[in-house]
Amino acid sequence: MLISKLVGERSKTTPSDAQFTSHAFMLRAGFMKQVSNGIWTLTMPAKRIANKIETIIREEMDLIEGQECLFPVVLPRDLLEESGRYESIGLELVRFKDRNNRDNVLGMTHEEAAVHLARNTVSSYQQLPFMIYQIQAKFRDEARSRGGLIRVREFTMKDAYSFHETQEDLEKYYKRVYDSYIKIFKRIGMKNFIVVQSDSGMMGGSIAHEYMLLTPIGEDSIVICNNCGYKSNMEVAISKRDEIEDEDLQPIEKVYTGDAKEISEVVENLKLKDNSKTLKAVVFNIKGDLKANVLCFIRGDLEVNEAKLKKIVKKDIVPASLEDSNLIAGNIGPVGLKEDKNLIIVYDNSVKGLKNVVVGANENEYHFINACEGRDFVIDKTYDISKVQAGEKCSVCGSPLSIENGIEIGNIFQLGTRYTETMNMNVLDKTGKTFHPIMGCYGIGVGRAMASVAEEKSDDFGLVWPMSIAPWHVYLCPIKFNDAEIHAKTLEIYKTLNENGIEVLLDDRDVSPGFKFADCDLMGIPIRVVVSKKLLEKNELEIQLRETKERFNVPINSIVPKIRQIIEDSIKTND
Amino acid sequence: MLISKLVGERSKTTPSDAQFTSHAFMLRAGFMKQVSNGIWTLTMPAKRIANKIETIIREEMDLIEGQECLFPVVLPRDLLEESGRYESIGLELVRFKDRNNRDNVLGMTHEEAAVHLARNTVSSYQQLPFMIYQIQAKFRDEARSRGGLIRVREFTMKDAYSFHETQEDLEKYYKRVYDSYIKIFKRIGMKNFIVVQSDSGMMGGSIAHEYMLLTPIGEDSIVICNNCGYKSNMEVAISKRDEIEDEDLQPIEKVYTGDAKEISEVVENLKLKDNSKTLKAVVFNIKGDLKANVLCFIRGDLEVNEAKLKKIVKKDIVPASLEDSNLIAGNIGPVGLKEDKNLIIVYDNSVKGLKNVVVGANENEYHFINACEGRDFVIDKTYDISKVQAGEKCSVCGSPLSIENGIEIGNIFQLGTRYTETMNMNVLDKTGKTFHPIMGCYGIGVGRAMASVAEEKSDDFGLVWPMSIAPWHVYLCPIKFNDAEIHAKTLEIYKTLNENGIEVLLDDRDVSPGFKFADCDLMGIPIRVVVSKKLLEKNELEIQLRETKERFNVPINSIVPKIRQIIEDSIKTND
Repeated sequence: MLISKLVGERSKTTPSDAQFTSHAFMLRAGFMKQVSNGIWTLTMPAKRIANKIETIIREEMDLIEGQECLFPVVLPRDLLEESGRYESIGLELVRFKDRNNRDNVLGMTHEEAAVHLARNTVSSYQQLPFMIYQIQAKFRDEARSRGGLIRVREFTMKDAYSFHETQEDLEKYYKRVYDSYIKIFKRIGMKNFIVVQSDSGMMGGSIAHEYMLLTPIGEDSIVICNNCGYKSNMEVAISKRDEIEDEDLQPIEKVYTGDAKEISEVVENLKLKDNSKTLKAVVFNIKGDLKANVLCFIRGDLEVNEAKLKKIVKKDIVPASLEDSNLIAGNIGPVGLKEDKNLIIVYDNSVKGLKNVVVGANENEYHFINACEGRDFVIDKTYDISKVQAGEKCSVCGSPLSIENGIEIGNIFQLGTRYTETMNMNVLDKTGKTFHPIMGCYGIGVGRAMASVAEEKSDDFGLVWPMSIAPWHVYLCPIKFNDAEIHAKTLEIYKTLNENGIEVLLDDRDVSPGFKFADCDLMGIPIRVVVSKKLLEKNELEIQLRETKERFNVPINSIVPKIRQIIEDSIKTND
Repeated sequence: MLISKLVGERSKTTPSDAQFTSHAFMLRAGFMKQVSNGIWTLTMPAKRIANKIETIIREEMDLIEGQECLFPVVLPRDLLEESGRYESIGLELVRFKDRNNRDNVLGMTHEEAAVHLARNTVSSYQQLPFMIYQIQAKFRDEARSRGGLIRVREFTMKDAYSFHETQEDLEKYYKRVYDSYIKIFKRIGMKNFIVVQSDSGMMGGSIAHEYMLLTPIGEDSIVICNNCGYKSNMEVAISKRDEIEDEDLQPIEKVYTGDAKEISEVVENLKLKDNSKTLKAVVFNIKGDLKANVLCFIRGDLEVNEAKLKKIVKKDIVPASLEDSNLIAGNIGPVGLKEDKNLIIVYDNSVKGLKNVVVGANENEYHFINACEGRDFVIDKTYDISKVQAGEKCSVCGSPLSIENGIEIGNIFQLGTRYTETMNMNVLDKTGKTFHPIMGCYGIGVGRAMASVAEEKSDDFGLVWPMSIAPWHVYLCPIKFNDAEIHAKTLEIYKTLNENGIEVLLDDRDVSPGFKFADCDLMGIPIRVVVSKKLLEKNELEIQLRETKERFNVPINSIVPKIRQIIEDSIKTND
């Protein structure tokens, strides 16, 4: 490829709206152009990277007996009504009417399409297990797309679905996908990623894992134990807390606290040791039913984990409006709280056995001090609805936990029979009885993987692509391309490299060496090969490696084997 | 791949709704499943074929310096408003509102997206010419999808866009794409296809060609001269007609024709020689404006070509309703026709100089006989709005024309500056002045190409895939796979073939040989390899070729080179 014809202008200035390194450099290198909010066009270099990532994914999926299929982008409403997702998914799901006034959606994930294909097609246990997958465009109408290809509305995704007779068989296969994903991310050149337990969210099911690239720009919080290796998405992370110190019960007393509504104000007003000597009330509404309030009580120094709470109330929740309730914001407490059929009360485990804490008095400007659970209010059942905090103890080994940020680069779910049951997929077992197959589903976003690698590997000068997914292996850089000898020799080398399967981008422009080197660095091509008068006199070429900046000369006639070796060594390092 | 795990059940019965051979066999072979009207899931074998077709297309596009990009499936309304297509395209274009109440569409073709990418990115004539392309899912809300993958609503398409400084440069590149397409269709194994002149339709522009697979099931009519090689889509085909025989003018006379409204009834009623002695009136409405009528007059034995008419009135037309007009259906004629501002009258060339013909009298139950153009009615201007009929003379060489049916498998257009002008793409020329680049666009549907090959090559037993796109090269067919020796030997051969890059589908089922052979034939795998006790005793395997039915034995130890040779020879034949 000649750079003079390459569509996608390089630029020296960082776009003002670029939030992340990957975003800024991929724009500056001319790898993509925004068409609409969260909707991008990829130019040739980015598409070449995407194709290489897709090939790696395809190879690994085929190695674990995946069958590549192609499901439709547009799905009929009926299909998602069978699973209940037509109603349960929010505005992320694009719904539209076709010319015959029928409702359709743009597929976000394809569990329903996978079951549609498999039901009636697969009828015997002997055909199980199997896995079907596709690599395809998806659309999710995200409220906040950001960061270039990190969070978009339209994206290419590999989604896979496996079907099993037993939970045991699913678990066996799930482990194979688990390992396959690690291989995939290593092969595309990612380094600092981990696998964490996660929430299965809108997919249904129970056990799930996410692959996280650790990076400060990540939107996800990950709880990590550096001692035993426990890793979990904050959404489902758990910890062990110190036992409550025993102390004598003090008499409960109502006190005037005036305008003190926030925990910090109450603590200051009453001169308490710290937030842990209070009981915090947090209120949510059930989405779509503003009358129904979910009232959570949690120790004052802890935060409510909304993902955990959602799983308990089994409904989507939104920040509360207290207008239609009898609750008094800032003074809510469990002592003397009136029953209300529109009120669901959830106690965090941290509330059990609390002694001598400050709680709201359910009366404006008043709190109780020295409230004790078991004496002043009694709770039957508590749940884990608290967020893990850095420094808390690992529930496995007791070491202190740390919290890091990560980008989700892949996810795997054990789905159970949620879809095969609702969509009535029946398979005959050995004895002739029918059962609903147990499913797993497995996703990787291609564009996000590309942006994540860019985020991890760039330096001050631009992108640094791993050899396995680089748009081209070599950036061929003649100094003075308009000189007849240089011109001829460069074209000869270009031809030789191409004929030997080495992918070359030739900088055929009449610009300064510095300009060319800067573009090569910006675009992140792994091997720069310089052709110059001086080098030709010695029958040599200069190689510089993008990542290490290592630079050395090579005799012209050994350029092909040398570059081949660099490519091979470099790809081997990832495995 | 093991057939026991392959998702996609083979079936012996032809589905009742399958209209075409390709449709029926691809359903029976389990290659696809319908999700909704015109929307399909492809199973593994079909996806493998599609992938191979895509690879061939990609290779050929890269050979003519194509830059693979990826445009979005979802496009914002603004973009199509710039070109005017948001309004001009009908219900085929899916429009929907996103969560922020913004209008979007599902891309049908990507001229606007291509210009969006190129404008401001490409700024100098030195960067021209270039071609960008993508292979991607598209959605067109067709009113009548049918025939399996032949006419669908969602499909994978390769669409390419080239940009040029001069018309001459476009034409030079257009010729390269023209040839490239022939190579592509040959490489995927198509035989009986031709290139015809075509209408550029909603794309704009003037010169256009279509690649047509000749087949009786084709929806397009193609006019062909077997002498000089003239080939044209009926929509734009022209012919030479015999001069009108000279005859004496007879006096015009109004006659009672009662209920005779159709040409045939009038001819019978008045005992005319044939339809050519009448003048036919055909009425259309302008789409979206039911008051505006387009009234066409054409010699009674000819038909109106709606595509030609649309180009003349420069509006979309629909069959007329005469309710709101003063026209009297069945008795419309040019003699004494009242002027009406809502009426556009178009005369076909065939009307000029007509003598002694029957025309409607614009009065219920009456016609004129012996009406003569130039005496009883005078026309200023005539147009070619007639359909070519078989047997008419070629406009180039005068030989008789024939008409065949075809499926459009590809198309290429010279677009001109329709998009670069409306979307304001400016490039600087050598002298520093700006110009709008001249564009070409080029499309191939992947699914339709696959179905077309199936249509052309199937036989009574099923599909017959060309080697270059076959889902697997070899169908490995052990007789009595549960026999220990057969089992072991078959797996050994399976492994050897796979390790040598030969793609194998292993029939590992415990079913009869006839059952296996039938499935192999139905699925159309090119090479069947049989393993049996008898053959093993001789250290041989049996090969049968799907297409020719040729059958012969091969020593086991030469199976790899033999199959390699068959594959190579077979792929070479296509080129």
